[in-house]
Amino acid sequence: MIKKVLIANRGEIAVQTVRNLHEMGLEAVAVYSTADRDGLFVKMADQAVCIGSGLPQDSYLKMGAILDAAVLTGADAIFPGYGFLAENSEFAELCQDYGVKFIGPSASVIDLMGNKANAKETMQKLDVPTIPGSDGFVDSLAEAKRIAAEIGYPVMLKAAAGGGGKGIRQVNDQVELAQAFTDTKRESKLSYGDDRLYLEKDLSDAKHIEMQAIADQHGHVVYFPERDCSLQRNHQKVLEESPCLELSAAERTQLGEVVTRAMRGIDYENTGTFEFLMDRDHHFYFMEMNTRLQVEHTITEEVAGVELIKAMIMVANGDDLPFQQADCGVHGYALECRINAEDPSRDFQPCAGKITKLHFPVGTKGVRIDSGVDTGSLISPFYDSMIAKIIVHMPTKQAAVAKMIRVLREFDLEGVQTNQEFLLALLQDQHFQTGDFNNLYIENVFLKDWMKQHGAK
Amino acid sequence: MIKKVLIANRGEIAVQTVRNLHEMGLEAVAVYSTADRDGLFVKMADQAVCIGSGLPQDSYLKMGAILDAAVLTGADAIFPGYGFLAENSEFAELCQDYGVKFIGPSASVIDLMGNKANAKETMQKLDVPTIPGSDGFVDSLAEAKRIAAEIGYPVMLKAAAGGGGKGIRQVNDQVELAQAFTDTKRESKLSYGDDRLYLEKDLSDAKHIEMQAIADQHGHVVYFPERDCSLQRNHQKVLEESPCLELSAAERTQLGEVVTRAMRGIDYENTGTFEFLMDRDHHFYFMEMNTRLQVEHTITEEVAGVELIKAMIMVANGDDLPFQQADCGVHGYALECRINAEDPSRDFQPCAGKITKLHFPVGTKGVRIDSGVDTGSLISPFYDSMIAKIIVHMPTKQAAVAKMIRVLREFDLEGVQTNQEFLLALLQDQHFQTGDFNNLYIENVFLKDWMKQHGAK
Repeated sequence: MIKKVLIANRGEIAVQTVRNLHEMGLEAVAVYSTADRDGLFVKMADQAVCIGSGLPQDSYLKMGAILDAAVLTGADAIFPGYGFLAENSEFAELCQDYGVKFIGPSASVIDLMGNKANAKETMQKLDVPTIPGSDGFVDSLAEAKRIAAEIGYPVMLKAAAGGGGKGIRQVNDQVELAQAFTDTKRESKLSYGDDRLYLEKDLSDAKHIEMQAIADQHGHVVYFPERDCSLQRNHQKVLEESPCLELSAAERTQLGEVVTRAMRGIDYENTGTFEFLMDRDHHFYFMEMNTRLQVEHTITEEVAGVELIKAMIMVANGDDLPFQQADCGVHGYALECRINAEDPSRDFQPCAGKITKLHFPVGTKGVRIDSGVDTGSLISPFYDSMIAKIIVHMPTKQAAVAKMIRVLREFDLEGVQTNQEFLLALLQDQHFQTGDFNNLYIENVFLKDWMKQHGAK
Repeated sequence: MIKKVLIANRGEIAVQTVRNLHEMGLEAVAVYSTADRDGLFVKMADQAVCIGSGLPQDSYLKMGAILDAAVLTGADAIFPGYGFLAENSEFAELCQDYGVKFIGPSASVIDLMGNKANAKETMQKLDVPTIPGSDGFVDSLAEAKRIAAEIGYPVMLKAAAGGGGKGIRQVNDQVELAQAFTDTKRESKLSYGDDRLYLEKDLSDAKHIEMQAIADQHGHVVYFPERDCSLQRNHQKVLEESPCLELSAAERTQLGEVVTRAMRGIDYENTGTFEFLMDRDHHFYFMEMNTRLQVEHTITEEVAGVELIKAMIMVANGDDLPFQQADCGVHGYALECRINAEDPSRDFQPCAGKITKLHFPVGTKGVRIDSGVDTGSLISPFYDSMIAKIIVHMPTKQAAVAKMIRVLREFDLEGVQTNQEFLLALLQDQHFQTGDFNNLYIENVFLKDWMKQHGAK
């Protein structure tokens, strides 16, 4: 029976976890670094243990110190949040050794899904579609043609030794393939002394669609409406929405069945998210699984009408899931913006400092702010720059976007730079509003326009 | 076409109205008294006009000054909010004379429903049940017996000249009635020199149940799930919930049909609320109608999934209602607590002062705070002491109450006293949690216990 939970995290997610624990009548233990001594989550927890200094490796990644704190305070379970040790199988195993319940999947599943090659192979065995391509290296043009014909053009021809956008060629038909095969092989030999090539379906024009699911210890699995997280900068999600408005109910159900099969196939306990690429024809290709709660679970909570941190704790406690598949349909539309302490005009460099003023534009229906800070909070240079999430839930995307724009305009934080203006510009962008964007839209299109107007000083 | 709206109000409702206008792409004009010079609503509005000094009669009740401000700023419409001029038919009429749309019903309907006797008579004609009793005065015991038998015991025998709890007798059967008739008549003659009596059904053990509805200019009427506002102190609502959990869906529909008929019967435009007493057998008795938006419309927005200030503006603009009856069913359960600047230990005396610290416990799903203040705001002695409303919306009452308790515990306001602890005690009260309370529960039971523990210093 879980009565006291240690939160092996900080900031925004630690604050929200304390709140959820208190609403459940459970006690919350915070662990913190000296840099977070005055953190909101530390003040809000029932007990707090200092586990080291500012750098993550000196505190939030110190497994022994965290587990000692759990033993010291008599915590029954550990909530890992996201980042830090949330996907560390060694930590999950150590928790078990210490007799403290890790609120998440088993160490072996974290391990399995944490290795990209193993994860892909496992998903293939479970009939989950993965990114099609050559099974290893392509030895001849004939083989390349055969595979390309099989998976369909356009394809990407990639040098095994390439990377960072080099040694890659997009190929649109078999005439181009012949030329590209010769050229890429020769260049790769010259550049890297390695002429091995492989071939993959070209999914550069795809959306990042992910689906979260949860399983209890009694065989119940529930999946949630998908999230569209295509709007990324530097591989960081900027703005997330749910559902993806171009998906039909039938497509959603189909994807949900795939995800449910995968959850059962790997005997998954607790919550996890399957990340897919979705092409223009709405074909899904498994990329990877996050074996933890994600930052953007908030929009799923709004759309599905559930509370996920509570459900995770209940599952870890051996309870049945508090909801069924039929309860978790699509109710309206939700949007999340991540407020980062960063300076977009200096290449989004993280900003540290003290928040001297903070006005939260709450009020009216459908606004939620999950924040880790308050007036007077210190933004430390040691950690992630994400300091708050603004979530809007409305019947339609149009209404949600109008509200989010109002909220962001009213949002007022002084003391550190934030990405407020960048988010406002994105929200007013026609491509965002109509859903006409892919994974690369921010990097390849939007950011370039933005930089012209607000660029590096 | 409404493009600019003047808000003839202040504080919380003015702030929320500015937000709604901005989300609709409309301009907001504030009018303010010198006491509200630094008010949040003044800062947030696009334009602001000072209309006088602190006392309501010198500013927020000055019809001419407000209408002059509307003309000066080119506002097309006036949003009255609640309190001040919201139910003043003269003001509604004056707006029409000035060619500014009053966002509410017509002056004649405000007038009709503002007079209790006329309202009761109108409702009776429309087959809306009113509180049964003698039609005027009761001349003889025989007549009293006949009426009492008709409406059913217990009844209240009341001296026409009585008041404030005096000259009233509860009567349980016809034996008691004979005695009470003689006694009350004699006492009334002695005390007031007036022995006229009347008789009413005893509804002291009843709940205050109200139902809001809205009608557009095109014949569409929609009613919303009822609110239980029985928890009152000194005739002020303290905590409101929706729906009333003891009502069945069939009873709700039946009440909704009565309300819809009444709305059509008086040719009502825009939103209004019908207040009923509901006895233990779930019979409803019309008390009065509020021809305006009410403070507690927030819980209706949550449960029905609508936005009412926006809908009011759309209706005033001549648009169709943005939702239909089928959209406005019961979705979960919502609870509102009113945060007042008052000191419960000094008989709830209003407190004025400057808010030196304010921490809003937002975050996690289902929490909404509609506030009129911010850190640094001045609470003026001139106005209502209600400074913020905390609303929680969850699938069940149990979950909502647990969340509201967490939110209220975390809520942190320094500089003025509030009723935070009083609300927390009420939320933890068994009678509140099980729904076992009537209109008089706070005054007759809860407050007495509370006073014993936290009473007047």
